[in-house]
Order: sequence, then C-alpha cells, then structure tokens
Amino acid sequence: MTATTRDKMIAGAADLMSRRGVNATSMRDVVRHTATPRGSISHHFPEGKRQLIAEAVVFAGQQVSVPLEKAVNQLGAIAGLKAFVASWRRQLESTRFEAGCPVLAVAVDRYVGEPSDKDDETAQQHLLDLADGVFADWRQIMLRALCREGLALKRAERLATLVVASIEGTVAMCRASRSAQTLDHVQEELKMILSDALARTTE
Amino acid sequence: MTATTRDKMIAGAADLMSRRGVNATSMRDVVRHTATPRGSISHHFPEGKRQLIAEAVVFAGQQVSVPLEKAVNQLGAIAGLKAFVASWRRQLESTRFEAGCPVLAVAVDRYVGEPSDKDDETAQQHLLDLADGVFADWRQIMLRALCREGLALKRAERLATLVVASIEGTVAMCRASRSAQTLDHVQEELKMILSDALARTTE
Repeated sequence: MTATTRDKMIAGAADLMSRRGVNATSMRDVVRHTATPRGSISHHFPEGKRQLIAEAVVFAGQQVSVPLEKAVNQLGAIAGLKAFVASWRRQLESTRFEAGCPVLAVAVDRYVGEPSDKDDETAQQHLLDLADGVFADWRQIMLRALCREGLALKRAERLATLVVASIEGTVAMCRASRSAQTLDHVQEELKMILSDALARTTE
Repeated sequence: MTATTRDKMIAGAADLMSRRGVNATSMRDVVRHTATPRGSISHHFPEGKRQLIAEAVVFAGQQVSVPLEKAVNQLGAIAGLKAFVASWRRQLESTRFEAGCPVLAVAVDRYVGEPSDKDDETAQQHLLDLADGVFADWRQIMLRALCREGLALKRAERLATLVVASIEGTVAMCRASRSAQTLDHVQEELKMILSDALARTTE
C-alpha cells in the first residue's frame, strides 16, 4: 500500500512536469493531482520537492527506455525508432498536446525550491545530471542496436544522438503547434536516414 | 531613450527565460536583471508579464532568423545550418551552458501569470502560437534554401523540420550535460545528411 502511494506521487509529478514544467509543479499540486494524503509528502520524500522531481525524472526515463529496449531487442533499430516515436505520439495525443516530455522540462527549466528550501543550485545540478543520464540511456539503447546491425561506432553514436535530440525537440514543437505533423515529418525522415545508413553497411 | 528601456527589458526577459524557463522569470527579476526603472513595466507592457514574455519570444525568434536568413541567402543551405548551430553554440558556451532556447522554454512550460492576472489559458495559447510561429519561421528559411538548391518540396520540408527539431532538442541536452559534445555530433550528422540529399539532386 505504501509503495502505491509513493509510486502514484512520482507518476503524478512526472505528468504535471510534462504539462507545466518544473516550476509550475508544486508539491501541493502533486498531492491534489494524485489524490494522495498530504502527510505522504514528508513521509515518502523527506527531502521535499527536489527529491520528488528527481524520482520523477528517473521514472519518466524508464517509462520510455523499457519499451524501447524491448523493441530493439526483439525487432531491431528501426523498430526501436518506431516504438520511441509511438510512445511520444501517445503522450501528446492522449493529452490533446498538453503533455510533452518531463525530462526535457528539467533540461530547460531552472529548479526553484519551495520557499523554505536551501541550496537550489545543488538540486539543480543534481536534476541536470539525472536528465543527462536519461538522455544518455535512450541514446545507448539506440546506439547498441545500430552497432549490432553493422554500423560503425562513431556513426551509430551520431545517429542515436540525432534520434533522441530530434524527437525531444519535436515533442516540444508538437506541443506548441498542438498537432502531430512535425512528428510525422521527423519520423519519416529519421526512418529513411537509419534505413539508408544500415543498407550501406551491407553494400 | 524610451525604446532602449523597452528593448532592454525584452532582451533581458528572453535571457532569463533561456536560463530559468518561463515560470521562474518574474517581472521583478527582469527589472533587476536589466537595471531598468520599476515603473517601466506598466508603462511599456500594460498587459504585464504575458506581454513581456510574448515580445521576448518574437525577439528571440528574430535573433536567430535574421543571421540564418542572411547566411542562406549569401552562402546556401549548408552555410545556414552552420550559422544556426553557431548561434546556439555561442549561446551555450558564453553562458557556461546555463542558457538554452527561450522559445523552447515557452513550448515546454505552461504559463502562470502574476497572482493578480486573469485568464492564463488565453495567455498560454497565445504564447504557444508565437513559439509555433518562430519554429515555423526558422523551418521556412531552411526549406526555401533547400528548395532553391534543387530538393523536392516534401523532402525539403522534412529536412528543414529535422534541422530545427534536432538542434532545439540538442540545445536542451547540452544544457543538461554542460557540454557541447551532443551539438558536435548532431551538427556533423545533419551536415552529412543535407549534403547527401543535395548531392543526389544532381545525380
């Protein structure tokens, strides 16, 4: 039971961050959004907002990396791209383009703690490290898949970075346009680029 | 003189948004950051924060589109890509990776007005429209350059979108990693992709 309340709060924080950014997501908002008891904050997150946001970043990373890893392992790099795009498309469309990427929110905003908090700078550096780690995870999964299919490490690295960076940028652009058209364009182009690069390895 | 105070506040707001996001940028912060008289807010921006943020988005858009347009007109699409990347590299490196893209901040955050403000939803939709317009501008400049150099409209559209989306995502990723390595990778890959696409039109 305790685990459930905690998990609900983490998922709720990730959801609010994806809709509003880091600084418009208060602890009070998370409690209200997840209908969890107010006392659970200090019980589950003794370090307060910075801890909850940090756990939400890790959670959001896994929400994407687990299906991505599964897709590349079962079906390869192109299927991984498809799964990666599909999870963002779902996120955007199921919320009428209100929710983007909570990890991107951490990479864009500067953390401001509750008024009683101290040392926001340390919290900010920690959150950036976590966001950086999530992006690195996603890139690694794509990179390994591309290498397994014959690409040289350097090219695989660049392409994996391009995939993650362009989809992250696209998710924000879709949120701005309230349309998935940008995602369609970028998905099609990336698919062509990856297929082309992989085809050349067998030439 | 009046124009100068106004311009300073707009540039200062864009700078703060690029470092902190939309919601950690208050009117008071902008006044302090730009050392402008407090009374100038209501004089220059009678609609308050939403107006200042809106003008900052348009300003930030032009800061990039003017040199980008110049580069593509004088030297073509690949030079445009180079100029686009260079302006973001400067922004990141000159601020020790503290400042990212203020337009991306609008596309990621949800606008929260000052406590006295009403109808944040209308302000939010307006800001998203402006951010969408800036992204569309940048894409159009790249698209026109690619078409002039022989690419078919559909491909040029997709590639222009990929360039803007991937660089926007990359800027946030560089901010998270406090390193320009991701930008190096994405720049190199995009240059190869554009050169390749353009080379094929003359085959």
